[in-house]
This record gives sequence, structure tokens and C-alpha cells, in this order.
Amino acid sequence: MEFEQIIEGIKKGDIRTLSRAITLAESLRADHREMALQVIEHFGVHHPSFRIGVSGTPGVGKSTFIEQIGLKILAQKPNAKIAVLSIDPSSANTKGSILGDKTRMELLSKESRVFIRPTASSNQPGGLARNTRLAMLLCEAAGFDHIIIESVGVGQGETELSQLTDVFLLLLNPGGGDELQGIKRGIVEEAHFILVNKSDGLLASQAKLTAKEYRNAIHIQSNQLEDMIQTKVFEISAVSGLNLSEFLLELDSFLNERKANGKLNTRREKQTHYWTIKTIKDLLQIELESYAKQIAHQPIDQLPERLAEEWFRERLS
Amino acid sequence: MEFEQIIEGIKKGDIRTLSRAITLAESLRADHREMALQVIEHFGVHHPSFRIGVSGTPGVGKSTFIEQIGLKILAQKPNAKIAVLSIDPSSANTKGSILGDKTRMELLSKESRVFIRPTASSNQPGGLARNTRLAMLLCEAAGFDHIIIESVGVGQGETELSQLTDVFLLLLNPGGGDELQGIKRGIVEEAHFILVNKSDGLLASQAKLTAKEYRNAIHIQSNQLEDMIQTKVFEISAVSGLNLSEFLLELDSFLNERKANGKLNTRREKQTHYWTIKTIKDLLQIELESYAKQIAHQPIDQLPERLAEEWFRERLS
Repeated sequence: MEFEQIIEGIKKGDIRTLSRAITLAESLRADHREMALQVIEHFGVHHPSFRIGVSGTPGVGKSTFIEQIGLKILAQKPNAKIAVLSIDPSSANTKGSILGDKTRMELLSKESRVFIRPTASSNQPGGLARNTRLAMLLCEAAGFDHIIIESVGVGQGETELSQLTDVFLLLLNPGGGDELQGIKRGIVEEAHFILVNKSDGLLASQAKLTAKEYRNAIHIQSNQLEDMIQTKVFEISAVSGLNLSEFLLELDSFLNERKANGKLNTRREKQTHYWTIKTIKDLLQIELESYAKQIAHQPIDQLPERLAEEWFRERLS
Repeated sequence: MEFEQIIEGIKKGDIRTLSRAITLAESLRADHREMALQVIEHFGVHHPSFRIGVSGTPGVGKSTFIEQIGLKILAQKPNAKIAVLSIDPSSANTKGSILGDKTRMELLSKESRVFIRPTASSNQPGGLARNTRLAMLLCEAAGFDHIIIESVGVGQGETELSQLTDVFLLLLNPGGGDELQGIKRGIVEEAHFILVNKSDGLLASQAKLTAKEYRNAIHIQSNQLEDMIQTKVFEISAVSGLNLSEFLLELDSFLNERKANGKLNTRREKQTHYWTIKTIKDLLQIELESYAKQIAHQPIDQLPERLAEEWFRERLS
């Protein structure tokens, strides 16, 4: 597919073209990736979108939650277009994951204004989050104005998710503190909204209690992207729909307010700084690994300082 | 002090000159450090020394142990010269530490064939281990053939200690597994000798039991510097002297055997590879921190990929 064809297809919001462009961004071939970057640059990096991050341990009900709020957003906003992306460090097989994601969000995947795509994992350092980030920018170029990114794995994914999105939602199970639920240290501090899910049936009172505990424990705190954030806590049920509308109302006003007062843009700028440094580090990592292999089997009569100087002299001007 | 004076002083094994050269290596001034490197290079990086690493949690008796084996080495080998260096990430004050170390090893510090010096901590990334490594090479240039490096802190120091020395000794308290003793995961695997100290008085039977448990638990294992190592376990008492002579006999034959079969040299080569990569990473870290500050307050309209490309274009040829 030619560059012009991709531009035209994405301009029209054509899903097949969008998929193709994301595949180019994920490619191991440098010329493919370069074309994807040029497509993104053609449309610019600033889009009037909302980027929503959803995190939580496996089994907490992220897919059901995303499906339900996705359907509500579609119903409330006749022009909204939703892209659902996922960061799953454990997924080795893209095809399987795509089918998996579509099955998990059956109703949402049938909607014409919805695009669901997991990010293909990559062998390169930092490749996964980069792929998700570029896929997001391509979706925005194609007119998707609500980007929902789901962190499937536990661990590194959450930190990166926070660096990709305008708002960070943390889903929790009723009962047990975040340590018991296997939540990574520092993640609760990144959350703008804590949602205690499964507040239905027998777990309803337990969910209420957990939400109350978090509400009491949370203070206004600073995180790495904002100076101060005030986390809000909801007990919800993705199954019964409890508090989903109320939460969406709060989410909407949160995002619109931050868009108006410039905080959303400031956060995105800080994120660009983060990804710039991260990208340089990832590339240097590749460079250093190849250098390490190169010297691994040669006996050395020089000081490490001199070899490092040589490395810099040969590579840095 | 002029370069030639330092060379002459070190050639004679003059302690004042050696101290001065180490201070140059630790200096924040690049010209000082460069002079220290040239002094090291004048004498070469290959010395027929034994580099002995001693690790263990605070209070396990490392100083008493080092003093006792130091005195025994001096008694057994009339020509041996011993340098005791330390890696202490927590020491902010060099002067205090020097006095501290000399007080802790009062008898040893009075010996003319002994040089005791803690490494000054450094504000630069990786500075502490680098300073210890250069101090070691300077000591070897000055004729010290037994270098004992003590890791005072717990954590990073141990890994680096293993990368600095020919043999890695781990001191343990009687009773409790390594987890209970706060030993970092993976450190036991690095050890060539496990020494259960304080095997005297009331703790003797407990020490015997602990040593037995470790002996049973240890298999031949591979670590990052050797393919396969067989850790040996001793119960010792630095206070009563129990098993110190037996251990020293084993240590000596271990080192001599590895010197003869080339394993000692292979390990040192791998270490040089490690420190080369580490030195490059530390320098890049400084470079990246300054770049991060530079871009932190500028709004960005470019993809992180393009900024990274620019960074490389401007710096890498």
C-alpha cells in the first residue's frame, strides 16, 4: 500500500487502512516503521482526544468494564469514536490476542464506531509501549477521539500506561488492600480514579467497605506527572451497571476541566519528554548490547575508562 | 605533586604517594582523574595479586575477620603486602571513615606491610565502585599483592564487589537463612566461600547447624562470572580463631589453582568487559540527565522518535 493511499484511507477513517498502518508501526523493518512515523507526522501529534488508561489485576473485570463504559459513551455522544488498545507484555501471538479481545468485548466489537486492537509484543527493548503509543496516534489521526488503553499484565505496564494517557483508572476487587491484590507499589498514587468493581450481589457490602477504606486513606498527593492529584473513589459494578453513569459524568468533567485549564496538555508534554528519553535509552541499550557481544571474547589490556572513551570517540561527535 | 614524583613514589611503595594518587582518582576534577589513570597505565593493569572480596550484613564481624586473616597472612608470607579497601555507599565523610576503619582494625593498621583505606563516596553515577577499582589498581602498582575489599553496605555493593575480586567470601551469622539475615537474593550464588562466623561460646552449636544447612543446600551452580562454582562452607570464629587457618589454606589453594589453570584471568577479563559497559552507561546517564533538563521546559511538537533521532544525529557519528 502506498503512502498516499494510507493517508487517504486514514483521512476517511477506514479501519482496514488503520490496521495496516498500525502493522507498519509494529514492523521489525525500519522502512515500514519510518512510513508509519511519516503517516503520523502528516496528521500531526496534537489531537482533541481523550486518552483513558485502565489498569487492575487480572480477573478484576477490566474487559466488562471497558465494554460497558464504551457502550455508554457511544450512547451519550453520537459522534464519538472509540479505540480500545491493550498493553499485554505476555502476549506473544497477535492473532490470538485480537480474537481474544474481540471475544471479551463482544457487544462493543460489533459497533461500527469502535476499533479494538491489542498491541503486538516486540522483541526490541521498549517495543511494546512504543507500538501502543504509535497505534494510539494513528487511531487519533483516523478520527478516534476516545482512546481506551488497557494494561493487561501486572508490573511495568502500569507505569507506562500512566505515561500514555490523560487519565488513569485503577480497578480493584472488593476486600483486601492493594498489597493483597498484587498492585504494584506506587500505582495507587498514579490513579485519578479508584473503582472498586463487583459491587453487586454478595460482594456489595464488602465493595462499599473497601471503597470507604480507600476514601479515608487517600490524601491529596503528588505523582510524577502532576504536582497534586485528588484521587476519587467509586464502588461500581460493570455487571449491574451500578454507578457507571455517575462515574462517567465525573470522568467527563475531569477531562474537560483539565483540557480547559491546560493541565491535560502539560501532562502530554511531560509524557513526550519521558518517551523521548525512554526512546534514546532503548536505542542505546541495543547499541550497548551489540558492543558487549563484540568485546566479550577479546582479552583486554586497557582500563574500562579508556575503552569507554574509545566507544564515545567512535560514536559521539 | 608531579607525575614523575608519583610514579617514583609508587614504585618505591611509598604510602603517602599512594594515598595522594588515590585521592587524585577520586577527585571531581577531570585532570586529576586523568593523571591517576595515566599512573595506573604506567604500571599496567595486570598484576600478580589476589583480590579478595568480603561481604556480609552489618554486625556479622567483617572487620574482626579481616584483621585476623590479615595478621595470619602477614605471619605466613614474609613478603606479602595487604591493602584493605571498602565499598560503603552510606559513607559521606571520608575522613571519618578512615579513622573508623583504622579503629576497627587496630592491630592490622599498625603493621607496616598494611594499607587501609575506605573509598570516598562520589556524587557521580557509578563513582563509588569506580573509585574502589582504581584504588585497587594503584595499590597493586605500589606492590600490594593481597587486596581485601570489604562491602560495608547491603545491596548494590555486593554485586559490584563480586565484579571487582578474584574470590568472593560471604560471612553469615549463626542461625536463620540468608533471607532472615537480609542477604540480597542471588548473592549466596556468587560466593566461593560461605563463612558462618561467631562459632564460639554459646553460638557454637548453632553455627555448626547453620553451616550444615548451607552445606546441604548448596549444589554446584553457575553464576554470572563463572560457569560452575562449588561453594565451600566453614564455621569459623574470628574471635577464637576457630578454623581460620584451615580456611586460609583452602583459600590459598583455591586462588593458586585458578591462577594456574587460567580461570582467575578469565574472570578478570569478564570483569573488565563488565566495567567497560558499566562505565559507558554511567557516562550516558550523565549525558541523558542533562538532556532531560534541557528539554524539560520546552513544548514539543515532534514525535519522541524524531527527537531521539536528533539526539543521536547530534551526538553519534
